[in-house]
Amino acid sequence: MDLSSFVTSLTTSFLIFLVLMLLFTWLSGRPGNKFIYFPNRILKGFDPVEGGYASRNPFSWAYEAFSSTEQDIIALSGVDTAVYFVFLSTVLGILVFSGVLLLPVLLPVAATDKSVKTANSTTSNNTFNDLDKLSMGNIGEKSNRLWAFLIGTYWVSFVTYYMLWKAYKHVSELRANALESPEVKPEQFAILVRDIPDLPEGQTRKEQIDSYFKSIYPETFYRSMVVTNNKVVNKIYEELEGYKKKLARAEAIYADSKSTGKPEGTRPTNKTGFLGLVGEKVDSIDYYNEKINEIIPRWEAEQKVTLREKQQGAAIVFFTSRVTAASAAQSLHAQMMDTWTVIDAPEPRQLIWPNFSLKFFDRQIRQNVVYVIVALTIFFYMIPIGFISAFTTLENLKKLLPFLKSIINQPEVRTILEAYLPQIALIVFLAMLPKLLLFLSKSEGIPSKSLIERAASGKYFYFSVLNVFIGVTVGGTLFTTFKTIQKSPDSAITILANGLPANATFFLTYVALKFFVGYGLELSRIVPLIIFHLKKKYLCKTEAEVKEAWKPGDLGYATKVPSDMLIVTIVLCYSVIAPLIIPFGVVYFGLGWLIHRNQALKVYVPSYESYGRMWPHMQARILASLVLYQLTMFGYFGAKKFPYAVILIPGIVFSLVFAYVCKQKFYRFFHDTALEVAAEELKETPNMERIFRAYIPPSLRNEKIDDDQFEDALSQVSRSSSNV
Amino acid sequence: MDLSSFVTSLTTSFLIFLVLMLLFTWLSGRPGNKFIYFPNRILKGFDPVEGGYASRNPFSWAYEAFSSTEQDIIALSGVDTAVYFVFLSTVLGILVFSGVLLLPVLLPVAATDKSVKTANSTTSNNTFNDLDKLSMGNIGEKSNRLWAFLIGTYWVSFVTYYMLWKAYKHVSELRANALESPEVKPEQFAILVRDIPDLPEGQTRKEQIDSYFKSIYPETFYRSMVVTNNKVVNKIYEELEGYKKKLARAEAIYADSKSTGKPEGTRPTNKTGFLGLVGEKVDSIDYYNEKINEIIPRWEAEQKVTLREKQQGAAIVFFTSRVTAASAAQSLHAQMMDTWTVIDAPEPRQLIWPNFSLKFFDRQIRQNVVYVIVALTIFFYMIPIGFISAFTTLENLKKLLPFLKSIINQPEVRTILEAYLPQIALIVFLAMLPKLLLFLSKSEGIPSKSLIERAASGKYFYFSVLNVFIGVTVGGTLFTTFKTIQKSPDSAITILANGLPANATFFLTYVALKFFVGYGLELSRIVPLIIFHLKKKYLCKTEAEVKEAWKPGDLGYATKVPSDMLIVTIVLCYSVIAPLIIPFGVVYFGLGWLIHRNQALKVYVPSYESYGRMWPHMQARILASLVLYQLTMFGYFGAKKFPYAVILIPGIVFSLVFAYVCKQKFYRFFHDTALEVAAEELKETPNMERIFRAYIPPSLRNEKIDDDQFEDALSQVSRSSSNV
Repeated sequence: MDLSSFVTSLTTSFLIFLVLMLLFTWLSGRPGNKFIYFPNRILKGFDPVEGGYASRNPFSWAYEAFSSTEQDIIALSGVDTAVYFVFLSTVLGILVFSGVLLLPVLLPVAATDKSVKTANSTTSNNTFNDLDKLSMGNIGEKSNRLWAFLIGTYWVSFVTYYMLWKAYKHVSELRANALESPEVKPEQFAILVRDIPDLPEGQTRKEQIDSYFKSIYPETFYRSMVVTNNKVVNKIYEELEGYKKKLARAEAIYADSKSTGKPEGTRPTNKTGFLGLVGEKVDSIDYYNEKINEIIPRWEAEQKVTLREKQQGAAIVFFTSRVTAASAAQSLHAQMMDTWTVIDAPEPRQLIWPNFSLKFFDRQIRQNVVYVIVALTIFFYMIPIGFISAFTTLENLKKLLPFLKSIINQPEVRTILEAYLPQIALIVFLAMLPKLLLFLSKSEGIPSKSLIERAASGKYFYFSVLNVFIGVTVGGTLFTTFKTIQKSPDSAITILANGLPANATFFLTYVALKFFVGYGLELSRIVPLIIFHLKKKYLCKTEAEVKEAWKPGDLGYATKVPSDMLIVTIVLCYSVIAPLIIPFGVVYFGLGWLIHRNQALKVYVPSYESYGRMWPHMQARILASLVLYQLTMFGYFGAKKFPYAVILIPGIVFSLVFAYVCKQKFYRFFHDTALEVAAEELKETPNMERIFRAYIPPSLRNEKIDDDQFEDALSQVSRSSSNV
Repeated sequence: MDLSSFVTSLTTSFLIFLVLMLLFTWLSGRPGNKFIYFPNRILKGFDPVEGGYASRNPFSWAYEAFSSTEQDIIALSGVDTAVYFVFLSTVLGILVFSGVLLLPVLLPVAATDKSVKTANSTTSNNTFNDLDKLSMGNIGEKSNRLWAFLIGTYWVSFVTYYMLWKAYKHVSELRANALESPEVKPEQFAILVRDIPDLPEGQTRKEQIDSYFKSIYPETFYRSMVVTNNKVVNKIYEELEGYKKKLARAEAIYADSKSTGKPEGTRPTNKTGFLGLVGEKVDSIDYYNEKINEIIPRWEAEQKVTLREKQQGAAIVFFTSRVTAASAAQSLHAQMMDTWTVIDAPEPRQLIWPNFSLKFFDRQIRQNVVYVIVALTIFFYMIPIGFISAFTTLENLKKLLPFLKSIINQPEVRTILEAYLPQIALIVFLAMLPKLLLFLSKSEGIPSKSLIERAASGKYFYFSVLNVFIGVTVGGTLFTTFKTIQKSPDSAITILANGLPANATFFLTYVALKFFVGYGLELSRIVPLIIFHLKKKYLCKTEAEVKEAWKPGDLGYATKVPSDMLIVTIVLCYSVIAPLIIPFGVVYFGLGWLIHRNQALKVYVPSYESYGRMWPHMQARILASLVLYQLTMFGYFGAKKFPYAVILIPGIVFSLVFAYVCKQKFYRFFHDTALEVAAEELKETPNMERIFRAYIPPSLRNEKIDDDQFEDALSQVSRSSSNV
């Protein structure tokens, strides 16, 4: 890629960004769009826009985002979001500090070297263009100028260690502050117990669990909730909720018709058959009411059956003390480690009930199977894509969907389809990947949503680094010149040495595209806006439906973090080879920080809170990128035949030691709750009944069923602590 | 080695064994030797010999050992000893079950094969002798008879899995029974706290520790004992104890002289200078009394100084509840993992006080440094030996010890010394090895004796397996024929294939020597007997000195287990290649069981109790031996060009899975105390004061110093639980 085409691509991206920014300023100023641009503030009960719409200048959002504090973020979006900003600002810090030294030093050193240019100008004119002159590729072999780059390599490493150490300490503080907060949080009083052994003769589950925990914690055991298999009851509950929604919709239509049409209104009707398309035509309101009245007794009966007969070998156990719960979650309870296993309880909304009753070794097997599948997906990701492409060839399509035959047989359509089907398949597969990884992580048997997202995000990181980064750089360069390698193995390194700076321009464009177009779309929320207005106009009839239409969702760590991490990896690896990438990285993370700050404050609503348990994984991955960078640099200095490349080896060793020390010093607190933190005073005596009720899933909640009936699965209040 | 020399060596060993047995029968029957043959029973207050000396037949000891139950062992020698017998009987079981199938099947299969014999008879007559005919080396390449050996390989593996699984379950039960016993054991009420952060302004250590644990455990915290640097006070205490012993001795000599010589007696005298050889001559009793009276105030002053000013950042914390102590030892207390680290307390007698105050990362560094040193020692163990030999060459000796010059310069002495000095150095080094490994393990910073012995035993195992077994088998065979390998790499496997069965005879003799001579010496206790009688006759004057002379010591797991493990490794690895080794292994472990049973019941006194924490390491090492065996077999089948050798690979994978499952199911209970076990009822309310006092080291114990003075380091009884 030469300079002009690079500038063209950059300009285009920037123009798109400008247009999206203008759109955002214009659209977000209109009160009708407040549900799209300020849903988090609305849901939290704040005024959407401080100061009103009229007074807003186009950059007020940026000013607001910039001047918000970490405490604002924690209050509005939780600790996890705050940790995400620590991640962004840490990376930003690494890049800014690196750039401060590398840009003014390395760019002139590279630009003024003449050795390679003259040597290559006769053979290949295209390899070295104006941009490449500013990279390490422009330095001759064994040149003394390489010393500057070697020092640069260490500078980036030390900046990274420093920033990561500071960040880990800070995040640990954030987590501690959140966990020691005087607010009563149900998850701090509960533990999950799995792998409960088979029932002894003549005892109920409840008795078994209660007597077990009462003997160990006579003072602080409160109550237990036996986990049940809720599959059937959930289905009935969903059916019921569906009919309730449909009824509300029918009533809204009826009320609407009264005001627009005849004063007595038109009662809506529907057909009872498949998708409402066939079958008998009935009065909707009567029909749905009838259905609801029919389902409710069925639901209540099923609730009772579930609570009584579908008990599993797992439970949630409640304690009256935070310290006991924190300590219980870390202690070995049973002599056999595969029975009575305990972990700390996640928030009620995060619980994955069906994963609860999986047995210990079942989970282990699932986890390993998933790891193997993911490893295979990463290394042979072309196979599923090829499989999808094969499945979507025209011939197969014709067989599967014969009614398409006449269309496909037209020559123009045929050509286009044949050219694009595999690419479409690839895009579809890549778009499905996060969902697939989430599904796989869930299949591991992890019982909490945040940990599932964390696991999926890890998988996605390895996928993107291995396939996108290493695939493009090394693979791309190596495979095209495979024959040259076979002749002389030495030249593999030479190809890498020439290939790395060449690819730098590609990645520069990639990063720029990512932030200009990606962030433009993110901030302007064009797609959700259009969907919302369409839905509101044509589909939504009730308030609940409108709310459903603008529901903002969460930040989506599972995909956001790995895609940021890919940029970290790229920028770190090229930071010394082509320092020009650093400003791009700075813009990516600077702009990302600003825009996500706006989104976190005003748009997204977190769907869970894990108190920063994502951080150790982020930190480990930044370090992994650093090691990859150090290895790349070692290889690249070798390719430049620089004899002092070995000086880089202690750096790699130090990175591993640093990772080990961080893990030893900080990690366990991100896995377990430290007792000194849990021992902090509470604002009020916890209302144990409310804590207990928070964990009852909606499908089992019922005002009519009183405590006596729940007794089967939801064990009784223990005598010793019932008056707490 | 041909058959006749093998039989000769076996017969010699057996004769030595017979002689030692007869000696044992004769010597143990004499009441004067009861302190050597029955010290454990005497110390426990039992009658040394049930039924008296006269009625004993030569095999009554064997009958008594055989009919003793596991409960007897636990009562007389503790859980650790019982676990050692589980280890012996498990290995015995593996070998018996293996032999039952392998001996009647594989020996005839090997003996009747003619293929190799005819092929080799022309080239080398010595390679295949009568013994080797019974081994797998006698089977021709690609022979179908190899199937029998392949099945045999799997049979041994499955027998091992079965026995290990049963044993792990059993040991886990033993540990649980011991830990849930209703007896009050001090170590079950205490935890060790290390890495206590620097003192905050205006607080004492005691206040810092007490307020920290009181806030976390308001109900169950009892008291804390700040760890002090006892180096000086210990030295003074030892000095004091030394003079007390000398005084007792002088008084005994004086009393003795009254009865033998003049009625008024001769007051013993001694010289005050170096080693009592030079200096002023004084009356011993007066002198020692004076010394003692002089030291006591110094000791008491130093006690106070130690308790007040030499406090370290570590403590022993006591709880009034077993469950709390067990749970506290497993829980993360501080946000930073390198502060307030906790582990379960070992018994008071096991504590290594100086290791207490080492800081977290200091310990980590020490551990890694020790690992590196041990790895280097294992792989280059010739280097320290060479170092020692160089140090002990005649020239160096002459320089260091000039007074030897005249002796060394005699030609005969010179020749002998030059020939044997390196060997002596090797023997000295090998004899020093366990001590060196114990020292290294202690340097890791482990604060309890049992864990230090366990760590040393692991190091010794790797040393012996790598150097003795692999060194002799593979190394020995390969290095002597190094040039052949260089010509054609393929022949390395052939050498191994021929070398393994050839070495079998060597190891057969080794095992036989080990049990005949080793166990003969063990049972007859000739060496301790002679030393005891010499000491008693010429040195001991007081009762305490006599007791010191027959003090039996403990079983010495640190060297016993690894040397047994070496036999396990040898026998397992040769079980299919040369099944004849199995009976030898059976005798080794059968006889070992019987003889050690006798020694455990009557002789050795355990110096600590770790409730079977050695077991997981034994189990892991048996499994490691099994994997080594499977790998050897895989290589050996390959050398036999048997195409179905790949069938062995699933076996190796299964061994690793088995190890993983065992670790997942059982391991943590051997690291932490399960709460369900700790929650069992106690026989009596624990006397917390007694528990606390048990941990005060002897050098700090003083009747005169009352509680108020201890207060500085040994914190006050907590208010909430002082009345427990």
